[in-house]
Amino acid sequence: MVRRDEIRAGEVAIEAPAATDAGLVFIGRIRTPWTDRLECPRQGRADGPTCRIEVFPPWIPVLDGIAQYERLEVLYWLHLSRRDLVRQSPANDGSTRGTFGLRSPARPNPIGSSIVNLVRVEAGTLLVRGLDCLDGTPMIDLKPDRTLFTPIAPRQPGDDQVGDAWRADTP
Amino acid sequence: MVRRDEIRAGEVAIEAPAATDAGLVFIGRIRTPWTDRLECPRQGRADGPTCRIEVFPPWIPVLDGIAQYERLEVLYWLHLSRRDLVRQSPANDGSTRGTFGLRSPARPNPIGSSIVNLVRVEAGTLLVRGLDCLDGTPMIDLKPDRTLFTPIAPRQPGDDQVGDAWRADTP
Repeated sequence: MVRRDEIRAGEVAIEAPAATDAGLVFIGRIRTPWTDRLECPRQGRADGPTCRIEVFPPWIPVLDGIAQYERLEVLYWLHLSRRDLVRQSPANDGSTRGTFGLRSPARPNPIGSSIVNLVRVEAGTLLVRGLDCLDGTPMIDLKPDRTLFTPIAPRQPGDDQVGDAWRADTP
Repeated sequence: MVRRDEIRAGEVAIEAPAATDAGLVFIGRIRTPWTDRLECPRQGRADGPTCRIEVFPPWIPVLDGIAQYERLEVLYWLHLSRRDLVRQSPANDGSTRGTFGLRSPARPNPIGSSIVNLVRVEAGTLLVRGLDCLDGTPMIDLKPDRTLFTPIAPRQPGDDQVGDAWRADTP
């Protein structure tokens, strides 16, 4: 039986360092049809249900300009996830893998990222499709999808840097 | 002249709420050729220089399983970015847009996200191409690229939910 917070055969938890290197502010709240983690999709789908991203008042004007993008990248804080699992067994079959080789919500910094289709912007709320998170999940960032965004700022030297002229593996 | 932290004509900064809703732990450090923000690419490129992601010791075993993915999603903390700009003028020409309509590093939660090509995994270090950040940027999460990852965990009801049977805009 799949439960919520058990450690399964072969999984490894560590005593994780204090998470005090940087602090986040919650920008809004995501409303989805899924009120239990055991209902959430494992992966959002472009033709999934329309969900709402409700932006908190101080940040509503910050949405200006977002409506022109058909797809957005959404970052959210998986507030119910444990952060101490370093090896996980998603199939609960004894086989395990390191957390960074998975898109599991349980991770040292439980940040979820999705690409969503923007259906509509209402006052302070985005209607989107493609999410996979629990109802009430805190939203921490919104950006245009990288494949649709062309930088407006002037180019800098790094933009034209290709190949291995600089080699990361040379001291 | 482009400087580092100026407020440009038309830009708006707010007194942002305290960033205490959640805390992050830095997982590693990113080494790139760019030692000044005025050199960084505006957007990483797949044929850009090979960069290193150095993972801190407690997290090295957590990389197990990552090498099978050709592309990874990397989240990093843009530690030198101001967080209070809500309207920005990337071209510094008086035209402005809300921060969530931009991929600017200056944002309330300054989290950068890139899709990188994995060149090689060495002990505790990933060599990747496609980054755009400053040398020394803290890394906060690594995941397989969403387009390459197939969930291993059993399907849940949400995985098969399509269309608007649940309508986010109905009370």
